[in-house]
Amino acid sequence: MTTSPDTPVPPISREERAQRAATVFNHLPPRTDAAVLFDDQFIQYYAGFAFHATERPIALVILPGGERHLFVPRLEREHAQTFAETEQVVDYPEYPGETHPMEVLAAHLRALGLGHARIGVDHDGYPAVMGYSGPPVSEVMPDAVVRRVSPHLDAQMALKSPAELALIRESVRWGDHAHRLLQQYTQVGASETDVEGQATREATAAMVAAIGEQRRTPNRWLSGAVALYRGQIGAASALPHAMTSGVRFQAGDTLVTGAGAGVGGYLSELERTMVMGEPSAEQRAFFAHMLALQDIAFEALRPGATCASVDLAVLAYVDREGLQPYWRHHVGHGLGQRIHEAPFLDRGDSRVLEPGMVLSVEPGLYVPGLGGFRHSDTILITASGMEILTSYPRALEDLVIP
Amino acid sequence: MTTSPDTPVPPISREERAQRAATVFNHLPPRTDAAVLFDDQFIQYYAGFAFHATERPIALVILPGGERHLFVPRLEREHAQTFAETEQVVDYPEYPGETHPMEVLAAHLRALGLGHARIGVDHDGYPAVMGYSGPPVSEVMPDAVVRRVSPHLDAQMALKSPAELALIRESVRWGDHAHRLLQQYTQVGASETDVEGQATREATAAMVAAIGEQRRTPNRWLSGAVALYRGQIGAASALPHAMTSGVRFQAGDTLVTGAGAGVGGYLSELERTMVMGEPSAEQRAFFAHMLALQDIAFEALRPGATCASVDLAVLAYVDREGLQPYWRHHVGHGLGQRIHEAPFLDRGDSRVLEPGMVLSVEPGLYVPGLGGFRHSDTILITASGMEILTSYPRALEDLVIP
Repeated sequence: MTTSPDTPVPPISREERAQRAATVFNHLPPRTDAAVLFDDQFIQYYAGFAFHATERPIALVILPGGERHLFVPRLEREHAQTFAETEQVVDYPEYPGETHPMEVLAAHLRALGLGHARIGVDHDGYPAVMGYSGPPVSEVMPDAVVRRVSPHLDAQMALKSPAELALIRESVRWGDHAHRLLQQYTQVGASETDVEGQATREATAAMVAAIGEQRRTPNRWLSGAVALYRGQIGAASALPHAMTSGVRFQAGDTLVTGAGAGVGGYLSELERTMVMGEPSAEQRAFFAHMLALQDIAFEALRPGATCASVDLAVLAYVDREGLQPYWRHHVGHGLGQRIHEAPFLDRGDSRVLEPGMVLSVEPGLYVPGLGGFRHSDTILITASGMEILTSYPRALEDLVIP
Repeated sequence: MTTSPDTPVPPISREERAQRAATVFNHLPPRTDAAVLFDDQFIQYYAGFAFHATERPIALVILPGGERHLFVPRLEREHAQTFAETEQVVDYPEYPGETHPMEVLAAHLRALGLGHARIGVDHDGYPAVMGYSGPPVSEVMPDAVVRRVSPHLDAQMALKSPAELALIRESVRWGDHAHRLLQQYTQVGASETDVEGQATREATAAMVAAIGEQRRTPNRWLSGAVALYRGQIGAASALPHAMTSGVRFQAGDTLVTGAGAGVGGYLSELERTMVMGEPSAEQRAFFAHMLALQDIAFEALRPGATCASVDLAVLAYVDREGLQPYWRHHVGHGLGQRIHEAPFLDRGDSRVLEPGMVLSVEPGLYVPGLGGFRHSDTILITASGMEILTSYPRALEDLVIP
């Protein structure tokens, strides 16, 4: 592929993140006085601060108007002051420390006049990560009204801006490149680990050469341009989330791939079903059903439709064709900064599709002893319908490994 | 190093995990009727089931006597039936699904007679991972008494068995090997990324050749044998958890390393301060203080002492020597299956050290403009004192890059 000259896609600007924080209250329940967020992904989204969650809690406080305070342990102070896009960094000495960090946070919230406020939290307290233990926000702020609001935050994250879409499109480009290399290097007798490693290394090197490393805006799930099998090779591909790996390819194997790239903190998803050598009649039949399922989903995806309606349209085909024994999961999920995000293309998700939402479309069939059949494409809901952002070949003849 | 012939260290047996589940109630508050755990690390510890947490909740129910039920989405059923060490696998169709998974879980708990029970949870409900949203356990089980018990589970995990210690010792061996390669390849002008990559690839290859890949018992934090800098190079090493990377080594740099290996799901921690070329008087002075701090900690570590007493002993030296401006974090933390675990060598942690606990010992000094000074060693509390499991050289003359 052509790798130069490239104009790097701009990262998310400080102004855009400030705007997210300023407008979060439009998404929160009416009369919410503050948001207190613990999840690293929400904190990265609203404040551009990337970190690994440990037993030392980190929290982002957002006040009406969008003022942001980042609450960190002392050892993260300079890191936070340098990189966090917040108006204030507040630190506590250490976890567990003489005063529990949650008490320090509560004192800061009271000092902000929030002692009796309505506070939206992503969850009520910090989870039991790496041996952390501590009280929920509702316990250290007994006079406040604490409500869990993560679905409201998810609703804001689901609507991608032009800058986010540009990063996702760039991610698609490099996921596509990694997948082409993966397909090229896959052959009978080769080892999964070697093929994945070679494709991923070469694609990442090409991406870094073209657009630079993505250090300042890491993605928690994807670093570089990646293509892999995750053990979904041969009969094991019938496990949708197999965790074994390291096998060698054999003639007749059904393969399920995965590819993507982390660009400016955003990602995309591309998955393909491939076959080692001449497909059997059974492989052809399930492949054709899988393509039909994905086509039905593409048809159903449009603004104004519910997420549930897409899943139900696909399920109608599954039921009609007697494929229920091979059906394991819903049609897809939102994605962008996180590898999975709300909303979900699931019969139980009544949310309405809106222009700017980016989703995976990946109905799958899993046949014990034969393998898994799943393509995944990343799509954008547009004003008039949808656009498939991934452009990798979908037809069986393009996905047979000779 | 000698890499053959090796007798692979045995993994944790099914019997040992069953015994953990059977004895968990000895650690839980009296009269607890069941434990309901969502954290992937607790589930791996008690049921040997490794998975990546997504928006689809997974929970482990432990009943008195140690009977274990694993609650999974339909798409994980076969995976769970194959690999989870549980008496029963219960599945729900999908998230969010027509009935919320938490309601399905509640129905299962009620069917087990737990509708009015005392239930210990690691946290009250599943956190807002990847767009998940749902009610806490206390809401779907309104007649049960739901208590958060993660510190009780941490207390059980903190006491390592002989089998766990053997895996940690094997991890130490490969972390040491990776670190030797890292030190060997580090030189002025080399790139951090290249040196880390070469040391990690070669050490991992040597480890796999000697003891095999560790696929069935993955460690969430360490895969293979790893040695790296995490951007703690030159002045940036003054940020204890720097997230920048990719620089080139320069004469005079202070370096802070990290190394370890994932073996049978367990890990260890080795960190060293190194200097590029002849150390300056300032580098020598801070290095000497750092060694003194670690020696004080080693002296203070013994069964019966509190975690706080170790931190306070080190802090007394920090205060006496006027090093408070360079002090950022407590002395260390438990580790084993998780990269950080309770207890913490922190003035606020009153827990008592017991034989079988494994901890990192890593007091650090961070000097803006000059760099960070921190060794980390993994130690075991023994019946009579403590044993340093890591054996890498600690003296400055052994850690100068020529």
